Amino acid sequence: MWFGIIMAGGSGTRFWPLSRELFPKQFLSLDGNSSLLQGTIDRISPLIPQERLWIIVGPKHEAETRRILRLAEKEGLPAKVFVEPQSLNTLAPLAIASVYLARTDPEAVLAVMASDHLITPGEKFLALMHQACSIAGRHDAILTFGIPPSRPETGFGYIETGEIVPEESTDLAPVFHVANFVEKPDRERAERFLSGKRHLWNSGMLAFRARVFLDELRIHQPHFYEALQVFAEVIGTDKESKALASLYSRAPETSVDYGLLEKSTRVWTVSSLLDWKDVGSWSALDDISEKDADGNVLRGNVLSLHNKNCILFGDKRILATIGLKDLIVVDTDDATLVCHKDEAQKVREVVSELKRKKRVEALEHRTTHRPWGHYTILDQGPNYKIKNVTVNPRSRLSYQMHLHRSEHWVVIAGTARITLEDQEIFLHVNQSIDIPKTTRHRIENPGKVPLVIIEVQNGEYLEEDDIIRFSDDYQRSTDETVAKPSSGEKKD
Amino acid sequence: MWFGIIMAGGSGTRFWPLSRELFPKQFLSLDGNSSLLQGTIDRISPLIPQERLWIIVGPKHEAETRRILRLAEKEGLPAKVFVEPQSLNTLAPLAIASVYLARTDPEAVLAVMASDHLITPGEKFLALMHQACSIAGRHDAILTFGIPPSRPETGFGYIETGEIVPEESTDLAPVFHVANFVEKPDRERAERFLSGKRHLWNSGMLAFRARVFLDELRIHQPHFYEALQVFAEVIGTDKESKALASLYSRAPETSVDYGLLEKSTRVWTVSSLLDWKDVGSWSALDDISEKDADGNVLRGNVLSLHNKNCILFGDKRILATIGLKDLIVVDTDDATLVCHKDEAQKVREVVSELKRKKRVEALEHRTTHRPWGHYTILDQGPNYKIKNVTVNPRSRLSYQMHLHRSEHWVVIAGTARITLEDQEIFLHVNQSIDIPKTTRHRIENPGKVPLVIIEVQNGEYLEEDDIIRFSDDYQRSTDETVAKPSSGEKKD
Repeated sequence: MWFGIIMAGGSGTRFWPLSRELFPKQFLSLDGNSSLLQGTIDRISPLIPQERLWIIVGPKHEAETRRILRLAEKEGLPAKVFVEPQSLNTLAPLAIASVYLARTDPEAVLAVMASDHLITPGEKFLALMHQACSIAGRHDAILTFGIPPSRPETGFGYIETGEIVPEESTDLAPVFHVANFVEKPDRERAERFLSGKRHLWNSGMLAFRARVFLDELRIHQPHFYEALQVFAEVIGTDKESKALASLYSRAPETSVDYGLLEKSTRVWTVSSLLDWKDVGSWSALDDISEKDADGNVLRGNVLSLHNKNCILFGDKRILATIGLKDLIVVDTDDATLVCHKDEAQKVREVVSELKRKKRVEALEHRTTHRPWGHYTILDQGPNYKIKNVTVNPRSRLSYQMHLHRSEHWVVIAGTARITLEDQEIFLHVNQSIDIPKTTRHRIENPGKVPLVIIEVQNGEYLEEDDIIRFSDDYQRSTDETVAKPSSGEKKD
Repeated sequence: MWFGIIMAGGSGTRFWPLSRELFPKQFLSLDGNSSLLQGTIDRISPLIPQERLWIIVGPKHEAETRRILRLAEKEGLPAKVFVEPQSLNTLAPLAIASVYLARTDPEAVLAVMASDHLITPGEKFLALMHQACSIAGRHDAILTFGIPPSRPETGFGYIETGEIVPEESTDLAPVFHVANFVEKPDRERAERFLSGKRHLWNSGMLAFRARVFLDELRIHQPHFYEALQVFAEVIGTDKESKALASLYSRAPETSVDYGLLEKSTRVWTVSSLLDWKDVGSWSALDDISEKDADGNVLRGNVLSLHNKNCILFGDKRILATIGLKDLIVVDTDDATLVCHKDEAQKVREVVSELKRKKRVEALEHRTTHRPWGHYTILDQGPNYKIKNVTVNPRSRLSYQMHLHRSEHWVVIAGTARITLEDQEIFLHVNQSIDIPKTTRHRIENPGKVPLVIIEVQNGEYLEEDDIIRFSDDYQRSTDETVAKPSSGEKKD
């Protein structure tokens, strides 16, 4: 059985202000289509059905990942979202996924891919993945995907090929033993790699059997392997969750390349041309975007006069640009970036500075998604906050109470069923209700179209953690008043 | 008696998006202090008290002008706001002001100045204005203010000096007959003016007696003079307002320079150095602003990394800027401008384009001022609009009704007295009320602190012209449902 493992980490710094800590690159649509994560799922789905996909995410990104999956979901069982207790680079999650899968099928093949790369053409990707998974099924080998370089790129790691594996090589792709992994080379070395024809770009994709991966771990990461064996014993018991957290706290924080592949002698590579892009920064958007006659990438609400080779992303407000050259301008609800293309790497510095100042603009967008829908903060000031709250059809927020704020709701679209203590009240467009502090209440959308409510909050404390939940469809904490101050993840 | 005439026209295009058609340059604070209009009033006030100031404005700018005057008002009678029926350059309003003042005092001296210039030092300005007004009182002359050039400026008009007027010349300023007015010269000519020492920059300020100005009009604009005489007859009668509109519709649309001064032989000039600046575009801000070590002008919510010689104006949202050179970035609630300094003149093109598209961003800011306070549109969409409405202490909106929308109010600061048909209801922080469509209502702030209300509007038509006023403290139309569609000027 083949499984798809999609690595969906990401810190959300390189594409700020479009990306945020809670909304990293894999959630963005950089090519104007669906999100990169969605694109990754769509790309692999003809080969591996959704119920055999594992999306590996950090705890901060679970909700948004689930939302994207819900939007994308086809008939049948849903994909599995594996939430890491903490982010630990790539070795640990792949090892743990192997442990889980090996319990029922040690010969399960794991097809590993990043969630935020662009790869075309899709047919060729599928053919190569099929070839690699097939080989992984027949041989005790870990398959990498090497791409013959077309330029002396210094931004990628390289794979040095060894002996060919003649019986698995095809017209589509020769297969080699890997002689060596090479870190990002300098220019001179990259030139040599290009002319020498023995080096390939390391795309980061993998295919291997669970048992083979674990066997290699036993050899090269024996302590971690032991911990994995202990953990495997409690899978499916009530100790699992605690054991997983404990395992993570002791697991090596290293990449699969460094922690295993570079040490192993069983690594092969499938070598074939693919249009594979790890869009690494705003300036890299140039490679993947359509441009106007002056080389500008334009998106959204932009008025462009006499600009050349710019990347201009407008949003709700008008972005007027005149006489610019080689600039990146990205406008969002609560932050605007204006940056020279040569300095696109320094966007990280901006995000660090914002984090240092504890500014929410580093963390999340003004619109926050929840299992039941989403809300946008329209305005806030001393003792008040105004939100546009949208509840999906047949969804409801938790039954809850606030100690420090009252709420006033006006329905502007759809129909609401409001629970207020022991009353049930239907509210239609143009109707309103007051929710005094310390009264128990719930908003539900029993209808078939989205429910939109304008919420005006009043009170001396308006953070999201002033919430006591009495019941919740999404099993969220029922006592968050004792939780740490808001990270924007706890509201409804 | 001396009168100050402050010319407050302005189209609001050059400093977009900070300026708008309804909020032109004189309302801006370009040097980080008070508005330019306020600065002009403050500058002249030691010489001419506010009750003898005339602010000449177009109809679109009356409300904001009155608001600034209210903020600035000292003890005593207020300044006069003279609202032109339409904007007609400078000759017509000065002629009409002369007619008005001549009725009670033909020897009244008019000290004319622009509302949107920066002039320092204030003491010297006052001394020169005192000298000019004194001379104007003693002689049948129109006094201009010439500034000895310090560079071969091609952006100003020049005054060519003739014979000196020895009896009125002082250590502070020699006084000359004006030989000629010269339009903006080319560079070569400007160089000659600089070295020849006979040419002065024309600052546009004037001082003259009403009778002298009208006498000169009789000679050089005889038809207009006749019309002025006819108009003078009806001043103070119920025909005045209609006659004024009629006069404007036939008055010459020309500048006082072109229509009178260039033709007159009675024009003198007071020549003295002044730091006088008509800040004409965003790039000219460089001349008047403090800069950081890298030559950047920074204002508001800006995060600046590795920028050089930029003008960066942040507002509510974060403006992050990296690696920029010679750029202007101006962020506002509903529009962002990013422009190379060399292209600052092309901001007009953006505004024209926005007007062509009938975009409200050319016309006004998201926050609109009213006689009773102000409101900000927080969000709008199909069938709803949300506003933050702030009512000044002891002010009230009109008693009104809407045909197409209901309104929901939540008080978030202060205390409201609500009239709803024949009820009177006090509403405190955290209380709310529904105003169904076609019910008569009024909001009043009877208190001593600002009243802030969040208003959620619902309805099939949400323009400002859906308002029927039954009474209004500010004498605004009581039947605006028949008025033309909203220009943003009619709400309350």
